[in-house]
Amino acid sequence: MDALIRRTLEGDVRSVARLITRLESGDREAYASLFRLKDHGGKAQVIGITGPPGAGKSTLADKLISQFRARGLKVGVLAVDPSSPFSGGAILGDRLRMQNHATDAGVFIRSLASRGSLGGISKATQAAIRVLDAAGYDLVLVETVGVGQSEIDIVKVADTVVLVSVPGLGDDIQVIKAGIMEIGDIFVVNKADRDGADKVVRELRAMLETQAMLKHGETVAGGPDTLVTREPELLHHAGLQPRVSMQEPLEIPPVLKTIAETGAGVAEVADAILSHFARLRASGELERKRLGTIGYQLDQFVLDQLAHLAARPAIEALKDNLAHSVLRRKTDIYSAGLALFHALLKEGEPHEHPEG
Amino acid sequence: MDALIRRTLEGDVRSVARLITRLESGDREAYASLFRLKDHGGKAQVIGITGPPGAGKSTLADKLISQFRARGLKVGVLAVDPSSPFSGGAILGDRLRMQNHATDAGVFIRSLASRGSLGGISKATQAAIRVLDAAGYDLVLVETVGVGQSEIDIVKVADTVVLVSVPGLGDDIQVIKAGIMEIGDIFVVNKADRDGADKVVRELRAMLETQAMLKHGETVAGGPDTLVTREPELLHHAGLQPRVSMQEPLEIPPVLKTIAETGAGVAEVADAILSHFARLRASGELERKRLGTIGYQLDQFVLDQLAHLAARPAIEALKDNLAHSVLRRKTDIYSAGLALFHALLKEGEPHEHPEG
Repeated sequence: MDALIRRTLEGDVRSVARLITRLESGDREAYASLFRLKDHGGKAQVIGITGPPGAGKSTLADKLISQFRARGLKVGVLAVDPSSPFSGGAILGDRLRMQNHATDAGVFIRSLASRGSLGGISKATQAAIRVLDAAGYDLVLVETVGVGQSEIDIVKVADTVVLVSVPGLGDDIQVIKAGIMEIGDIFVVNKADRDGADKVVRELRAMLETQAMLKHGETVAGGPDTLVTREPELLHHAGLQPRVSMQEPLEIPPVLKTIAETGAGVAEVADAILSHFARLRASGELERKRLGTIGYQLDQFVLDQLAHLAARPAIEALKDNLAHSVLRRKTDIYSAGLALFHALLKEGEPHEHPEG
Repeated sequence: MDALIRRTLEGDVRSVARLITRLESGDREAYASLFRLKDHGGKAQVIGITGPPGAGKSTLADKLISQFRARGLKVGVLAVDPSSPFSGGAILGDRLRMQNHATDAGVFIRSLASRGSLGGISKATQAAIRVLDAAGYDLVLVETVGVGQSEIDIVKVADTVVLVSVPGLGDDIQVIKAGIMEIGDIFVVNKADRDGADKVVRELRAMLETQAMLKHGETVAGGPDTLVTREPELLHHAGLQPRVSMQEPLEIPPVLKTIAETGAGVAEVADAILSHFARLRASGELERKRLGTIGYQLDQFVLDQLAHLAARPAIEALKDNLAHSVLRRKTDIYSAGLALFHALLKEGEPHEHPEG
């Protein structure tokens, strides 16, 4: 393990790969050894690429790699599989496209399972980000193929989130998407040669402006059903009433069009990613973001420890007994829950208060 | 509170509403009083209705209420809002349709926020199910308007899950849907007068058959990219190879077509829901399901207690200090996590081991 960590810190690709494999398999020694990375890294920009299935995220990632390589940057890519929590099945195929870079020592590509025992970005993914950072990669792209939670969780570990949309997903989807607008630092409308691309760009800009206005404390007249925008058409469509029209330009995140298949527009996305990071560093915002990420990782660590305690046979047996008692109406769920909670707390510190 | 619980158990609608309101607001006294429901209820069938936005779930729920009322059953409906974890915003309007039943004392309809502090089906939703059950409702419909996690979590509290699809959502969505196929007990293709309804029915049946074959131990030839089905067209579409064709009929969940707007097909869905419950009871499967639900609720209770501990000022201050130490590289995330975890355990039992 000593040699593996040492060679990883030297940037040896095979060692990086082996360490990540051990982390993914849940190897406790590998996790314990991560404290040796403490004095290394912290320089890589962590970039989340997310969006609905079929938006072309993998193709975009592939073309972004080429752009970053052309700028002399080393790139690590972690592709998080959309495993079903039930079957563990994954959507196959997309990963293959990125084989283009297989022979480039400045590119490291790895697919990781998304299933974390407690949801969120998996422990292995977070550990792999730290490994790539410590190994000297300048950029770590994390591609999450998600609808819902994994899209939202990426914001907790990424410095820059690229939200990829695509024309033709229908209105209902776009409405739901409104809920995740706040997580995007850069918006990409891919497959921009398709019908409706300009409409998606317009709608995204309108939503981002609304959001920016709300953030800047604009008065929202008329209660919760009333929003403020310079795109009254969109609000009309959503059954809402526009009330205020603003004249000043608002600062919103970039909304960029790409055709990832041909590479059109991808250079601009690469530029936007790099300048977002430069702004984060200059403004001190990066430190605030990273404190948030560390807080998230501490929470995940605590939940993980709790899950280990809960998996001990004594606790599992107690839980089973309690569940049967609740079913038979000998106790209620709240009393049973409290009993289980206190048993877990005791189980966590078995040797600190000897009873004899 | 005594009177409120007593009148709730007598089925008084206003008391039920007030108790649920107090639970939703997080009222600790209301939660503590729930142990008094212990000897009541356990008879209601809990039905989850889920599916993508725009599938017509609310309209279907509305028409199902009429069907159940015509059969003399009391119905409680909990509509869980698709709140964004960021803005708390909800999609408006759908709820209004169910006002039809506002004057019927045998129908209780309530909208609940979906945001649980730890994801999953919120504590308030689970508590509201117990209240409606104890108050004598024969059926509790829980409508979750979700993409992703909330669709999957409903299975943890429902006896019967109705999965609503709709034609015209596009292939990508259908592929993702494959991941949640296992949670459905009854499949409804709504808006069945639209183009493509029969195709959706065929695809659902094919996926369910594949699933049933895999469950029954059919050999899957040719590795993970090969599946088994009697709908080779579907596999071809997904880029997979069919290898085995079966002759015997397989038992799969019902796939039913409805036009909820007109009520067409809804009676059959109501029948399917009631007979699913009858089969669960007869086979003893209901008890197994309910043990699973209780286990889930115990887990949620423990996480909730932990969240309370974590919110105490001393723990928040410690976590903040630890996060800064990690950022400044004075410690690593794993040592910091362990320190936080042990502080939480101690915080949970402050009075049991006095140190002086």
